[in-house]
Amino acid sequence: MNKRNDLGTEPCPVARSISVVGDRWSLLLVRDAFDGVCRFSDFQRSLGVARNILAERLRRLVDAGILETRPGSNGGAHQEYVLTAQGQSLFPVVVALRQWGERHLFEQGEPHSELVEKSTGQPLHFMAPQAADGRPISPGDTEVRKLA
Amino acid sequence: MNKRNDLGTEPCPVARSISVVGDRWSLLLVRDAFDGVCRFSDFQRSLGVARNILAERLRRLVDAGILETRPGSNGGAHQEYVLTAQGQSLFPVVVALRQWGERHLFEQGEPHSELVEKSTGQPLHFMAPQAADGRPISPGDTEVRKLA
Repeated sequence: MNKRNDLGTEPCPVARSISVVGDRWSLLLVRDAFDGVCRFSDFQRSLGVARNILAERLRRLVDAGILETRPGSNGGAHQEYVLTAQGQSLFPVVVALRQWGERHLFEQGEPHSELVEKSTGQPLHFMAPQAADGRPISPGDTEVRKLA
Repeated sequence: MNKRNDLGTEPCPVARSISVVGDRWSLLLVRDAFDGVCRFSDFQRSLGVARNILAERLRRLVDAGILETRPGSNGGAHQEYVLTAQGQSLFPVVVALRQWGERHLFEQGEPHSELVEKSTGQPLHFMAPQAADGRPISPGDTEVRKLA
């Protein structure tokens, strides 16, 4: 069985999410959208991606309900792409990717961009999975309960 | 500038993480490894992926320090793949993907697998980014402080 094309119907929520945002360009576009990028030309400048690929990925994210279009804020002809509520709720995914990268993919002292709270300038708390009652929980203390 | 190939040197930790795990197979392999899959044949059965692609992706994850190999636990000739400490620390990424999928990619009442605490059987707490002092924080209250 080739499961490549039917991840979107799997009973595993991780697989379904991956079917929607589990590729490099989609994840980078979502990151840029959180960062306030909204114009086609600005996504293109940020990612250095071919126009046809960019157009296709943006359309996929719109179809998936992650981005929506709106008229350009300057009254121009060009539409803008902004995160929907469903897209905004990818924030934990982006923050988790960021915090993992900060920990493991930079040399000691190597500078990197930081995600901070606007009002305080402080970096965010390190995000870690917790049990139902809030205790920190490690992977070994969890299990996946599959469908019968 | 084609940034496709140099994500791994970007000052953005999100981009670096995506350069390492931002593709469908890598994410699914990491998910399976958290789920206790460790043999080549079991990864193959789980993902339905061609042997050559699977071998290449496993090797990339080993090279990236996310998986490591060990002798087969049954004393057989086949090695096993297990998460390193660095790989284990992708747990928040996998949980965030799961929780987003649970919220947005299933119909009301549609069954899905669940990640639960072994000792209690309870699903994990919903993981959300927090400010430095623990207050919940929304994307609009954050900003990325780029390198000068």
